[in-house]
Amino acid sequence: MTDDDIPHTALEGSDIGLVQYQDQFFDEPFMFDLGGSIPSFNIRYETYGSLNADASNAILVCHALTGDHHVAGRYTAEDRKPGWWNSLVGPGRPLDTNKFFVIGTNCLGGCQGTTGPSSFNPRTGTPYFLDFPQLTLRDMVRAQHRLVSHLGIKKLHAVIGGSMGGMHALLWATEYPDSVARIIALACAARQNTQAIAFNEVGRSAILQDPGWQQGRYTKNHGPQVGLAVARMMSHITYLSDQSLERKFGRTRRPRTEGEATTPFDIEFQVESYLRYQGNSFINRFDANSYLYITKASDRFDLSEGRTLEDAFAPMSARALIIGFSSDWLYSPEKNRDIALAMLRAGKNASYAEVEMDAGHDSFLLPSPPLHRSISVFLGSVA
Amino acid sequence: MTDDDIPHTALEGSDIGLVQYQDQFFDEPFMFDLGGSIPSFNIRYETYGSLNADASNAILVCHALTGDHHVAGRYTAEDRKPGWWNSLVGPGRPLDTNKFFVIGTNCLGGCQGTTGPSSFNPRTGTPYFLDFPQLTLRDMVRAQHRLVSHLGIKKLHAVIGGSMGGMHALLWATEYPDSVARIIALACAARQNTQAIAFNEVGRSAILQDPGWQQGRYTKNHGPQVGLAVARMMSHITYLSDQSLERKFGRTRRPRTEGEATTPFDIEFQVESYLRYQGNSFINRFDANSYLYITKASDRFDLSEGRTLEDAFAPMSARALIIGFSSDWLYSPEKNRDIALAMLRAGKNASYAEVEMDAGHDSFLLPSPPLHRSISVFLGSVA
Repeated sequence: MTDDDIPHTALEGSDIGLVQYQDQFFDEPFMFDLGGSIPSFNIRYETYGSLNADASNAILVCHALTGDHHVAGRYTAEDRKPGWWNSLVGPGRPLDTNKFFVIGTNCLGGCQGTTGPSSFNPRTGTPYFLDFPQLTLRDMVRAQHRLVSHLGIKKLHAVIGGSMGGMHALLWATEYPDSVARIIALACAARQNTQAIAFNEVGRSAILQDPGWQQGRYTKNHGPQVGLAVARMMSHITYLSDQSLERKFGRTRRPRTEGEATTPFDIEFQVESYLRYQGNSFINRFDANSYLYITKASDRFDLSEGRTLEDAFAPMSARALIIGFSSDWLYSPEKNRDIALAMLRAGKNASYAEVEMDAGHDSFLLPSPPLHRSISVFLGSVA
Repeated sequence: MTDDDIPHTALEGSDIGLVQYQDQFFDEPFMFDLGGSIPSFNIRYETYGSLNADASNAILVCHALTGDHHVAGRYTAEDRKPGWWNSLVGPGRPLDTNKFFVIGTNCLGGCQGTTGPSSFNPRTGTPYFLDFPQLTLRDMVRAQHRLVSHLGIKKLHAVIGGSMGGMHALLWATEYPDSVARIIALACAARQNTQAIAFNEVGRSAILQDPGWQQGRYTKNHGPQVGLAVARMMSHITYLSDQSLERKFGRTRRPRTEGEATTPFDIEFQVESYLRYQGNSFINRFDANSYLYITKASDRFDLSEGRTLEDAFAPMSARALIIGFSSDWLYSPEKNRDIALAMLRAGKNASYAEVEMDAGHDSFLLPSPPLHRSISVFLGSVA
């Protein structure tokens, strides 16, 4: 989903107001799961609300594939749009900033401020390009953990995230059981499924075969723009549902200007125009190499690799809330429910909620009373 | 689905044996729905079995997007694979060649012998390229009707087809009510839905933005190979189901040769290797401009445009069997059932069968006892 599609209707509470991002530079090496290291790294993050005296009220928000640290609020009063989960964060909202200290971070390997393949490589004096080590979701979570420790937080009140962010939350529970009291994972899965790998591979193929990719050593605005736009157009369809596309666009034709010259394969339907716009706006905000690295990291995610899912959850001490969405066909309700069931079989405190929404995978980004209520109750924001 | 994926298990009857295609050249203009004409056209087709004395035993088989006239049998004994619906056609099979005269044709706009954008344009002395007129499914059906008339057939015993071929069958029933006694439409819809248009648009974007496309004026093997392969990789995923991809590939890694040099975005999973193979083999057998024209024709298909679906079926006199497949998410069972319901509301003789198969949209291509039984009974092949 793009910010343009998210209605920022306030369901409760009020906006957080103006915010600023911060950069935390770690002048220490980061070692990657699959080998390789970088000598130092930056994490860009934002916080909302105040950390309490015993640092027990922090909630970490983890973003999806192409999201970032800008979870809520606006940088200036003139910003057209607030952060991507603005409806959830603020005074009186489910992530209630009167009670909680909320943290958003850009993931390792990303391109919105945290170190990734487009960042400066002090060893070569150029961007990392493909010298950036291969990445896993565990690497991203380890970097998040480093920041959280740096902020003086020993145990998070909660980690919450949707899609890839939900996978991060699962990893927090299994990798850092002493560091998190609650997790909320939305619209995700315990392992990347074959169909999701397949769609990601199509997107990567479009990028890798774009002559502009140049083995990853492109300069800004001279990269694989076409491949990246095609990848985004396709993945965007997988984030929505058949029903929501029907409702939004149906078979409505794009109006033509009188006398407009047309060629045979011009845009004919509104949905085509919408998709092309999504593709074209994405290339202005996202780096193609980051897209390759992060989709690969997601594809490698499999909590049950070499063990059962119950075994994977054995170390977990956090309480878990798993939320699936009825119209999500990328990470179906069943895949989400299976996470909670495996946790229960492992003797853990887990619950599953299925939210009826017809917006597809991206439902998790939309304000919805049942969704907000589930989250509020679980976090202890309301009785 | 590709021929490689189709198990040619004989469920009943026997193979049709060796076959030949034929070309029927019509030295007369063909006028297109959306304007424009071509001065003459060829239709490539195959027939199996014998036409009876009163020409009442003919069945027309309509192919899907990238299919062709080669429905059954082999051209030489050495052919690795028979035609794409071989399991359905032959002595003792549902399309029983002891009783029926079965016809397969390549659609207008195609690239396997019937006139399309890569065919010779007698007006210019070059291929048509984008001078080929814009296309609709009605144009394709009108060309099929021309061939059927030419073969001396006034009324077809049946028209049968899946996916786009199912849409052809619906058009036969509504456009040529006196020319067809039965239709069987599988895995299709009465209108192209928004999600299907969206996926097609991604494929077209990949082709149109490939520098090799050259506004459609490419020469064979120097065209938009990359774009066409990406389009095929993506659409191939939409033909399969999440379950069938899991069963076939799961998260199995591609084995690596000892000492093999690897780069970061090489194929890691078997499903990636499979998809890349699908993309690469498609570019050897399909023309990119045909892909553009035929997907556009499909996107324009909407029987209910400017009227209700009941009104659309008002002229129909054929009996209809509509078959949906449980795991088809491109043209869901509901979309198929809705066709039959609209026919019934229009007072027509229609039935709907839903076949439980987990292979996704392409289930219709696979041999299945319930599917074969439904077709046999409906066609009168068996009591």
